[in-house]
Amino acid sequence: MMMGDDVENGNLGPYQDRPRTFPNMRSKPYTPLIFRILRGINVRVLVILLLLGFGYVFYIGASTSPIIVFVFSVCIVSFLLSIYLTKWVLSKDEGPPEMVQISEAIRDGAEGFFRTQYGTISKMALLLALVILSIYLFRNTTPQQEASGLGRVTSACITVAAFLLGALCSGVAGYVGMWVSVRANVRVSSAARRSAREALQIAVRAGGFSALVVVGMAVIGIAILYAAFYVWLEVDSPGSMKVTDLPLLLVGYGFGASFVALFAQLGGGIFTKAADVGADLVGKVEQGIPEDDPRNPAVIADLVGDNVGDCAARGADLFESIAAEIISAMILGGTMAQRCKIEDPSGFILFPLVVHSFDLVVSSIGILSIRGTRDSGVKGPVEDPMTILQKGYSITIVLAVLTFAGSTRWLLYTEQAPSAWLNFSLCGLVGIITAYVFVWITKYYTDYKHEPVRTLALSSSTGHGTNIIAGVSLGLESTALPVLVISISIISAFWLGQTSGLVDETGSPTGGLFGTAVATMGMLSTAAYILTMDMFGPIADNAGGIVEMSQQSESVREITDLLDAVGNTTKATTKGFAIGSAALASFLLFSAYMDEVSSFARQSFKQVDIAIPEVFIGGLLGSMLIFLFSAWACAAVGRTAQEVVKEVRRQFIERPGIMDYKEKPDYGRCVAIVASASLREMIKPGALAIVSPIVVGFLFRVLGHYTGHPLLGAKVVAALLMFATVSGILMALFLNTAGGAWDNAKKYIETGALGGKGSDSHKAAVTGDTVGDPFKDTAGPSLHVLIKMLATITLVMAPVFL
Amino acid sequence: MMMGDDVENGNLGPYQDRPRTFPNMRSKPYTPLIFRILRGINVRVLVILLLLGFGYVFYIGASTSPIIVFVFSVCIVSFLLSIYLTKWVLSKDEGPPEMVQISEAIRDGAEGFFRTQYGTISKMALLLALVILSIYLFRNTTPQQEASGLGRVTSACITVAAFLLGALCSGVAGYVGMWVSVRANVRVSSAARRSAREALQIAVRAGGFSALVVVGMAVIGIAILYAAFYVWLEVDSPGSMKVTDLPLLLVGYGFGASFVALFAQLGGGIFTKAADVGADLVGKVEQGIPEDDPRNPAVIADLVGDNVGDCAARGADLFESIAAEIISAMILGGTMAQRCKIEDPSGFILFPLVVHSFDLVVSSIGILSIRGTRDSGVKGPVEDPMTILQKGYSITIVLAVLTFAGSTRWLLYTEQAPSAWLNFSLCGLVGIITAYVFVWITKYYTDYKHEPVRTLALSSSTGHGTNIIAGVSLGLESTALPVLVISISIISAFWLGQTSGLVDETGSPTGGLFGTAVATMGMLSTAAYILTMDMFGPIADNAGGIVEMSQQSESVREITDLLDAVGNTTKATTKGFAIGSAALASFLLFSAYMDEVSSFARQSFKQVDIAIPEVFIGGLLGSMLIFLFSAWACAAVGRTAQEVVKEVRRQFIERPGIMDYKEKPDYGRCVAIVASASLREMIKPGALAIVSPIVVGFLFRVLGHYTGHPLLGAKVVAALLMFATVSGILMALFLNTAGGAWDNAKKYIETGALGGKGSDSHKAAVTGDTVGDPFKDTAGPSLHVLIKMLATITLVMAPVFL
Repeated sequence: MMMGDDVENGNLGPYQDRPRTFPNMRSKPYTPLIFRILRGINVRVLVILLLLGFGYVFYIGASTSPIIVFVFSVCIVSFLLSIYLTKWVLSKDEGPPEMVQISEAIRDGAEGFFRTQYGTISKMALLLALVILSIYLFRNTTPQQEASGLGRVTSACITVAAFLLGALCSGVAGYVGMWVSVRANVRVSSAARRSAREALQIAVRAGGFSALVVVGMAVIGIAILYAAFYVWLEVDSPGSMKVTDLPLLLVGYGFGASFVALFAQLGGGIFTKAADVGADLVGKVEQGIPEDDPRNPAVIADLVGDNVGDCAARGADLFESIAAEIISAMILGGTMAQRCKIEDPSGFILFPLVVHSFDLVVSSIGILSIRGTRDSGVKGPVEDPMTILQKGYSITIVLAVLTFAGSTRWLLYTEQAPSAWLNFSLCGLVGIITAYVFVWITKYYTDYKHEPVRTLALSSSTGHGTNIIAGVSLGLESTALPVLVISISIISAFWLGQTSGLVDETGSPTGGLFGTAVATMGMLSTAAYILTMDMFGPIADNAGGIVEMSQQSESVREITDLLDAVGNTTKATTKGFAIGSAALASFLLFSAYMDEVSSFARQSFKQVDIAIPEVFIGGLLGSMLIFLFSAWACAAVGRTAQEVVKEVRRQFIERPGIMDYKEKPDYGRCVAIVASASLREMIKPGALAIVSPIVVGFLFRVLGHYTGHPLLGAKVVAALLMFATVSGILMALFLNTAGGAWDNAKKYIETGALGGKGSDSHKAAVTGDTVGDPFKDTAGPSLHVLIKMLATITLVMAPVFL
Repeated sequence: MMMGDDVENGNLGPYQDRPRTFPNMRSKPYTPLIFRILRGINVRVLVILLLLGFGYVFYIGASTSPIIVFVFSVCIVSFLLSIYLTKWVLSKDEGPPEMVQISEAIRDGAEGFFRTQYGTISKMALLLALVILSIYLFRNTTPQQEASGLGRVTSACITVAAFLLGALCSGVAGYVGMWVSVRANVRVSSAARRSAREALQIAVRAGGFSALVVVGMAVIGIAILYAAFYVWLEVDSPGSMKVTDLPLLLVGYGFGASFVALFAQLGGGIFTKAADVGADLVGKVEQGIPEDDPRNPAVIADLVGDNVGDCAARGADLFESIAAEIISAMILGGTMAQRCKIEDPSGFILFPLVVHSFDLVVSSIGILSIRGTRDSGVKGPVEDPMTILQKGYSITIVLAVLTFAGSTRWLLYTEQAPSAWLNFSLCGLVGIITAYVFVWITKYYTDYKHEPVRTLALSSSTGHGTNIIAGVSLGLESTALPVLVISISIISAFWLGQTSGLVDETGSPTGGLFGTAVATMGMLSTAAYILTMDMFGPIADNAGGIVEMSQQSESVREITDLLDAVGNTTKATTKGFAIGSAALASFLLFSAYMDEVSSFARQSFKQVDIAIPEVFIGGLLGSMLIFLFSAWACAAVGRTAQEVVKEVRRQFIERPGIMDYKEKPDYGRCVAIVASASLREMIKPGALAIVSPIVVGFLFRVLGHYTGHPLLGAKVVAALLMFATVSGILMALFLNTAGGAWDNAKKYIETGALGGKGSDSHKAAVTGDTVGDPFKDTAGPSLHVLIKMLATITLVMAPVFL
């Protein structure tokens, strides 16, 4: 079967054969279809085709706006840089054969799951595309569409095409994240044998590669769509569409992205945490063997989970965050420019793309600033990796502030309101400060250097029960400060926007909402660097697993443990970002939704009055949706983990030699169990999220029709969306923080506090950590995506409610 | 100290001295001031004074409306019946001296805590009364007030007087609940030695006593206030107030009631669960001794907790529920009657009082229908107490449907819309059905006869972690069905009301909101019986504790265990009622708030538009308030429980003889620790609930003033209220159901399933139960009260936001 018999000497030895993964597992490495096609083409032909393609894209871009050309150029340079980063990472050695074999087992498991998972997701996406198509073919057209001669068929094709492109890009973003992480992990392990700094650098550059690809793809995807629609629909020529209406056509892209991200996050999150919880409950708690011990039959599943859950899913998640935020800001920019009758509105519309282009530039500088020093020979005291990452972040953020201010001056300067750009750069500053404060709050509540986690650890000393109560309270309490910060930043950005001097025809100020949008962009103006730090975490975690499983010396483990600990902090931080930006983006998309409904219904839709019973019920249902979704996501992990526990216990009983390294565990069965369970379990919560707004909107539309309330469906859906957003933010904050705090309370005890490893306090803390796992890595991050998906689905499905 | 030395023989023996409770503990039994004054008066004088008082009240009532006379009469008959019930209960024997001594220890602890707690609460209430007074002295008057010549001073005095009366009555309601339960518990234990049926009857009649007093007091309090204001303000005479505006003056009563109930529930809930969790964690989990074992130093504190947490707090809670619901329905009835220009609006206004008068009548019949049979001699198979209670409930509910229909015909019949009363009785039916479905759903999710709890129990077999994950998921999931039911019942009651034929001046239908109000009344039309079943639980629980502590034989324990199990189910059921009615009452008070704001601001306030950023933020803050409040409530229990755990562990270490009955534990120290901690801990969450709506409203009022948004403060508070209501309902459902399910999953395992008592599954289930304790008995029930308190506080404090 799997391990040789020479394991008795404590060294795992070369695998005799590779672990089985799930049924239908192929033996040859898997390459996605698109890569295979590209590989089949002659290189010269490919280069020529690529150049031609770029040339055409640039031509279209140039005929749209010089800003688009700038965006294209930056994205292409970033892609080139990302290719350099991969080459650099892949050039590193993979270490001794035992490492390589473990890494290959992980890669097989991860790629196999990815293929099956995305197979399922793409089928669902195609089905949904058909639904959208049929809805759009029967929907009424808006006055704008009629004015621009945009027929039903065109409009349906545009939406479906954007949806599919968004879904595809989101999938590729996920694949890229996983692709690099399953290759970088072993190289980091290998480098850790030589130098901490080099290991850090490899992990950062691997993370940087996927961050640049993800952000770059979001930007260039939207830019290409924008330019293509611009040219195709002959925008701004007489009798056709106005450029300020163009961004609304991109909503399908955001919906496609969030659709795929939701299922990626759900499936991946269930996979990773079910394996983790199952492995910990039997391994750590019952058998008392360390984490990632090769004797644990679920250990490979756990390591596979890090890749499919953290890397692939987070890639799709961040891609979707950025896409949703860009599109919502573009829509608002367009609406505002139109209201204020600004001469050339393209600056306001394209501003988000430029911000993220600069994001690519400054983040690249930040990533490259983290260099391997020449300490490989000399073993000095290891520098704290967090300090190095923070230094890079400081460089990035300073540059981001400068480029942000520059972008506002370049694009948002208008004769009508000469000082508006200044106000908007202050909005950006508000966003950047908000992001910073969010990071600080997350650290305060989840880092064991501070009071809350210490109190939580202390509560473990009185048992499992008090630990859970304290963790739940901590999580619930931790929602307060972020909400206050978000509130203050929304109000101040709105106020800065209102006082920017931009006024509509009637002379009333209109810049408020755009101000909030600019603040969101400020918050995400270093997205690529943040994503790098986030991707760094699972790579380091995996490297640690490989080091542990291949039984390396203590000093090597220390290095990977250090990197892993830093990775935990950066992961928690990214979640703060994601949820903050989700809150803002959702609020922006909500106002876009109201505009969209107004134009469809050909009547003003400015208010959502919660004093109407039906609207109140819509809100109630929206909040309930969040609770039910979280319930199903957590329950899925719990159920799957129980299957893993049973399987691991069975293996320990049936193969008593495992504990003495005399028998090899069947890793493959655990991977197979987790994979098939998570594919099955992701459907129910995902379907709930997609179906319920549509059903609620349709039912109340019918009810409104019979009780003489026009727009009732649209209003109820609006309330559903807003209440779901608010509850979703709070629930996600609760789940993420509680999970992170439990994790670190356990780590704090493992440093030797309160009895240290193996004590009763530690056992209670492990229980807390187990409970926190589905909170922070399955339900919590899925909620970020859910919030934005709700916002885009209501926009795309608006015709159903009217 | 406490136990004699003859404990070795397994019998506890007479206590040598009574347990110490906390520092200022008095030795003589405590009687509230009002009772002492009454006792000091000559009996004949007292009777004459009482008769005179009644005469005057009837005189006032008669000059108001014959309906008031009816209400008065029913209430007085109920009070007489409740006196009969007490006499009956007190006439039962208290059993052997060891029982009496335990019961006295419990009574001492409970009354001591009650006195200290209500001392604190009354000081806070007085302070708040001063705040209200000063606000009302400086507020603007409404056009209605001016028209009726109601000056600032009068209006301030009315509000403050109503507030103080509400607070006083709420306190008395709590005291009555506790007073009877600390006396009935020992009588139930004693009766359990003879017959299960007799024990059941005592517990039911004791519960019935407090239920009749609580409901009667809520009804008569409001009726007296109404009649007094009616006569005093010369309502309906030319130039003075219209009767339809009168109910708004009663809001202070509701606020006073919910203010006291909030702190009673918080303090009592923290007390009972901290003692329970602390006792279980060391006793059950660490030492493996049974629940309520006399060797556990925290056992008396636990039994005291049942009285102050479940009886006193639930009495105040239900009192407040009924008061809030009556007042909100009266306000709506008045508003609607005015809009529809109904000739004699008093029927619509006084309808809720009549419904609850009939509630007293039909519930009394239900309570009296539960009789002790003559099985005292013959020991046949014990009848399931749940069946007996259900039979009583069936009688009550059938009568309630009939009287409800009769009341609608009597009071809601109007020439303008001859069939309106029929629609409204259907609304009542909707409410009764909703209540029934709620009970069913609660049972489905918390009873171990059904799937969910069984799955939860199964998840205990894989460890503490999976048990908690499964319980959290179960709780989150259990919010879905109740929300759907509430939604359907709001919509259908609203629709029935709209189509009732009542139209305003412009001819548009106006009965919708009143329809929802009638549904709420239908839901609560058997409130007294429900409360009886609820009060029954802690009395049975306490009786079981006394039986266990006084080391009675197995057969006696079986009887009390059976009663206790039934009590758990009825407790869970009442929570369903409480939360359902809170949701509806809060929605009704919300519309009263909007009317109130309109008349103060002298401009229409019909809409709360969540598309305005500030309003959205108000919502965000409202939901956050719920999360923070729950966090603090749970954390308080966790912290206090940790203190108990440490104390109990200390006693076991310092007095090793406790486990062999050779040394007596110091029960008093545990009571003292829990009492002082819960008094300290109830302040923070309580203050948060009261201060935050006022601060938020005031801040946004100022902000609105400077940014040119009139009514901004009022709008933001409205959003805060609605979002808090929605989140509060969901959070309370989650907390209550998860807690109940964990409790019963443990009980299911204790029946022998999955390894039974002492197995690893059982340990995991006990952890779940511990976590569930603060959920279901501290945070959850406090949220019911919080929701209604928010609704009343916004109404009373409305002048601050304008």
